[in-house]
Amino acid sequence: MKNFHYHMPVDLFFGEGQLAQLAPQMKRFGSRVLLVYGGGSIKRNGLYQKIMDIFAEEHISHWELAGVEPNPHLTTVVRGVELCREHNIELILAVGGGSSIDCAKVIAGSVHYNGNPWDIVLDSKLCTSALPLGVVLTLSATGSEMDPMAVITNTDLNLKYGTGSPLFIPKFSILDPTFTYTVPASQTAAGTADIMSHVFESYFTLNDGAYLINRLAEGILQTCIHYAPIAMKEPDNYEARANLMWASSQAINGLLKNGKTTPWSVHAMEHALSAYFDVTHGVGLAILTPVWMEYILNDDTVQMFAEYGWNVWHLDRTADKWDIARAAIAKTSEFFASLDIPMTLRELNIPEDMLETMAKNAPKGGDTIHGVVPLHWTDVLEIYKKAY
Amino acid sequence: MKNFHYHMPVDLFFGEGQLAQLAPQMKRFGSRVLLVYGGGSIKRNGLYQKIMDIFAEEHISHWELAGVEPNPHLTTVVRGVELCREHNIELILAVGGGSSIDCAKVIAGSVHYNGNPWDIVLDSKLCTSALPLGVVLTLSATGSEMDPMAVITNTDLNLKYGTGSPLFIPKFSILDPTFTYTVPASQTAAGTADIMSHVFESYFTLNDGAYLINRLAEGILQTCIHYAPIAMKEPDNYEARANLMWASSQAINGLLKNGKTTPWSVHAMEHALSAYFDVTHGVGLAILTPVWMEYILNDDTVQMFAEYGWNVWHLDRTADKWDIARAAIAKTSEFFASLDIPMTLRELNIPEDMLETMAKNAPKGGDTIHGVVPLHWTDVLEIYKKAY
Repeated sequence: MKNFHYHMPVDLFFGEGQLAQLAPQMKRFGSRVLLVYGGGSIKRNGLYQKIMDIFAEEHISHWELAGVEPNPHLTTVVRGVELCREHNIELILAVGGGSSIDCAKVIAGSVHYNGNPWDIVLDSKLCTSALPLGVVLTLSATGSEMDPMAVITNTDLNLKYGTGSPLFIPKFSILDPTFTYTVPASQTAAGTADIMSHVFESYFTLNDGAYLINRLAEGILQTCIHYAPIAMKEPDNYEARANLMWASSQAINGLLKNGKTTPWSVHAMEHALSAYFDVTHGVGLAILTPVWMEYILNDDTVQMFAEYGWNVWHLDRTADKWDIARAAIAKTSEFFASLDIPMTLRELNIPEDMLETMAKNAPKGGDTIHGVVPLHWTDVLEIYKKAY
Repeated sequence: MKNFHYHMPVDLFFGEGQLAQLAPQMKRFGSRVLLVYGGGSIKRNGLYQKIMDIFAEEHISHWELAGVEPNPHLTTVVRGVELCREHNIELILAVGGGSSIDCAKVIAGSVHYNGNPWDIVLDSKLCTSALPLGVVLTLSATGSEMDPMAVITNTDLNLKYGTGSPLFIPKFSILDPTFTYTVPASQTAAGTADIMSHVFESYFTLNDGAYLINRLAEGILQTCIHYAPIAMKEPDNYEARANLMWASSQAINGLLKNGKTTPWSVHAMEHALSAYFDVTHGVGLAILTPVWMEYILNDDTVQMFAEYGWNVWHLDRTADKWDIARAAIAKTSEFFASLDIPMTLRELNIPEDMLETMAKNAPKGGDTIHGVVPLHWTDVLEIYKKAY
């Protein structure tokens, strides 16, 4: 196991009815709130009105940043920063999924920074203070409600980069699984693929002696596999929605990272796609993940994939490890396909002649993604082609 | 899944060499420190001297509460409170295992309380403020380094009770697995039984829909089963010591409790024993646990024990669930025996004619332990007799 510093100071309220915590939590920080949300699903499902009622009852002044894109744009961050400065905002409240939360994080971290927020995306150490951030979660996917990370897209440069700072950690997060009842099946599927990808990125490592952490990772993967089909068939199944919601947070809140090397690979490859095309993040991950697994299967990694097959898919413990590794990878692909996720880049209408450009952009600085198996941009291109 | 509030504000530093964090962490709180430790193992293994050197270099004044008992006594808590008041202590630093930490927690929570600390053990809501507490951990067992709980023994009343308050959570904890290299095999075994019992107490519940959390619990159990024999044979095996240490924290820091009903049973039965006799806590738990499992095995609980057999012991998934449940319970008993833990109360020299008195004391107030299967004191007596 590697050395680590554990620090997760969020106050998190989980379960049906926890919106009752919103007013007391907001009041810890002030009464001038910037509400950040996405495309309006919270208006259709009634959550927006509930929050408006709380604002009114509690005499909280609020301004709105609406229409945050599924891959939040730098320009939206800039608009949010301006709103915060203009109205002396004391708390940012993100209501939504990862897009709204990520956007709110970089707004919060840029308000006191004298420069372009893209600087902070590129080097989060430039962020030395942040406005407090609260979250009401409506989508089980990115885990942004309980982590220090954010992903922002710069449409001028066609770059989508992750960034992170302890200052981005929400002060409070409200996780009511019933707020995800209206998430459509396709987004439930994509969200589950996102959760599983977060686990895979931390789980597939070599020689770090992190046995405990790998067993925890397997528990989260089994949960996704068990409940995603249930949640898609029965959108208001509380048990399924609750388990997926808590899995989304646990997948990326440090539980699976602390003590491990975590050389992420697939997210960088997906970000390069969605920087150019409006690919649903989880769909991109689901397409690339099994192809990536096959691509890096070798003498060094076979044991790692065999353990995945034994412990997650409960495959035959007495069988040959190569057979089990290949079967586990196949199971992964079949599982995503069973969730009705399109399983080729071609189906996303990505033009084939763009693959090389995107492959070159995938490593964040340099020409190689330093994953569990390093991937030169030419490897990324091969993976894109196999996934096409 | 049940509703919950997640709140774990500890700063935790894990890994070899993390004692370097001690000085900067202490300085966040002051320079007048009460050092709380046990029977002197930290003097034999050199840790005490390292801490003295840090105190000297950093000009930190310190006072000592040494000799904390393995089951810390109320009288020792009272002495600690007096030392804090007399010397205007700003930070309590517990160096040791659960005994020293638990003792330090109740001292910290009693300094500003105008009454007997036993009141706070009985009703922790009486604690409304606490001195900050830091921890340097030397034993993987109780998880007290990352939880709000403490257990104190009142030798006048022959009562050993648990108590808890968010105010007891350490401000920082330093977990260096090399500090457990000198823990003898017998204590490594007992500590592992303690960790596993914490998991069992949360894991064995009915109908709470906490699938994810049960899978995480199984990961921690597998870790204990895998590494305890290694750590006993190779005391300086870093991987084994590190996995056991982090397992000890994760077993009881909320990860396995949040979202579940957690109707503990075995700890109450063990506490009644060690309130009278100086039973090693983990040994008492190891003896009682398999007997308790057998005692509560019934139509309602068989599925729960079968899942334990399938997912932790990797028993045949196609076999009858009753057979698997019984086999899993037998495996549990065999595992503890394989760690050279004496597996009967008789071997602990507990007189048989005391069993009834202790059984009546096991429920904390009332005559029933409200566990996953409620246990009247007469049930506890039956379990004691079967374990004798």
